[in-house]
Amino acid sequence: MLGNITLIPVVGVPEIRPGDDLARLILAAAQATAPIADGDCLVVTQKVVSKAEGRLVAFDGSDESKAALIARESRRVIRRRGALRIAETNHGFVCANAGIDLSNVEAGFAALLPVDSDRSARRIRDVIASQGTSIGVIISDTFGRPWRRGVTDVAIGVAGIKPVIDLRGTNDALGRELAVTEVCIADEVAAAAELVMGKSTGVAAAIVRGLNQEWFGPGDIGDVIRPAQDDLFR
Amino acid sequence: MLGNITLIPVVGVPEIRPGDDLARLILAAAQATAPIADGDCLVVTQKVVSKAEGRLVAFDGSDESKAALIARESRRVIRRRGALRIAETNHGFVCANAGIDLSNVEAGFAALLPVDSDRSARRIRDVIASQGTSIGVIISDTFGRPWRRGVTDVAIGVAGIKPVIDLRGTNDALGRELAVTEVCIADEVAAAAELVMGKSTGVAAAIVRGLNQEWFGPGDIGDVIRPAQDDLFR
Repeated sequence: MLGNITLIPVVGVPEIRPGDDLARLILAAAQATAPIADGDCLVVTQKVVSKAEGRLVAFDGSDESKAALIARESRRVIRRRGALRIAETNHGFVCANAGIDLSNVEAGFAALLPVDSDRSARRIRDVIASQGTSIGVIISDTFGRPWRRGVTDVAIGVAGIKPVIDLRGTNDALGRELAVTEVCIADEVAAAAELVMGKSTGVAAAIVRGLNQEWFGPGDIGDVIRPAQDDLFR
Repeated sequence: MLGNITLIPVVGVPEIRPGDDLARLILAAAQATAPIADGDCLVVTQKVVSKAEGRLVAFDGSDESKAALIARESRRVIRRRGALRIAETNHGFVCANAGIDLSNVEAGFAALLPVDSDRSARRIRDVIASQGTSIGVIISDTFGRPWRRGVTDVAIGVAGIKPVIDLRGTNDALGRELAVTEVCIADEVAAAAELVMGKSTGVAAAIVRGLNQEWFGPGDIGDVIRPAQDDLFR
């Protein structure tokens, strides 16, 4: 029997600066309101991870500077329209402007994606494990999609949780083998967490409590990246 | 201050047959475990909606029959590889095989998408409103995405909830105007609900409790469909 899942915003995380110990600041904020517990998944937005890791660069707002930053942060541009670029980042994510972001960043700066978001997630997980609590961590970011209006949050890094669950070989409720075999639970968890974080509230992390414990274990965001040869849109 | 959100599976909904009063069956199942309350959003999977509405057609499993069904249910094919078609449905959704589905359907049949999923959502909402409970309803389906492995659930119909929230003109936590302006909360709610429904458990509905009440109101899934002229991938 499946149980309930609770989405809990972590409020009170201060404005993050380069070099801050993000995991300890999130832990302290959660401790004051809703302490993190074994078996939770902690979702942390890319923005604060990038700030803590010093992934901020001077940016004058010009289209030329933007194009140069995108070129540095991406392998290739998939589509362009005006100043917009849909680019494949050095990690393999396909998103607008290679994930470079101006909102919730001080004027004159742009935030780049973490160099290795799985490593970012592992660092947070390790600090919390050192306090005796075993959790999964997902780093989330906000991506647009083809065909559908509105952005949603997705996972760009994971630690201690399997991002894609393979249902191959399991049967549906009528006993037939399932045609749809792989569910990206990491993206579903990131999307769920966004509902309690919002875009303009300064809530940079959320606890997702009650996930199927079979989903926890070694994981790698590379499992979410569809190889180009399997992709009909690259 | 944002509060918690709770995702509650509605267990005990029986196998649905054409002509069943789906809303009353879901209400009865919820009543026995977790009664639906004012301000909830009820997420119902497409599969049971299609079954209740008799959107089942005989299907022999051949590639020829599949191609004929896809042609009937879609406006155009966007990409093809082998027997797979990425098609734009008559509603405007872009998805694999025009949303035609074989899992959790009896052998010899395929389930088509509802003719008008907003109407399907409104019917469910109206029945529950007639019992004195005011909620939002989302019909969800499972779609793949370009570039990313694993499927996630998205919204294909809504009633009483705005699917895309426009943050234009609001400020981020540092007081700068937000660059990202529109969030597809309907897709995030559908994805969240999937986490308590799974693919092989026969749980066909979930209650999402604690959503921002400002998100409720008149809504239309057309708001989620990106017009072809704004789309870089059609």
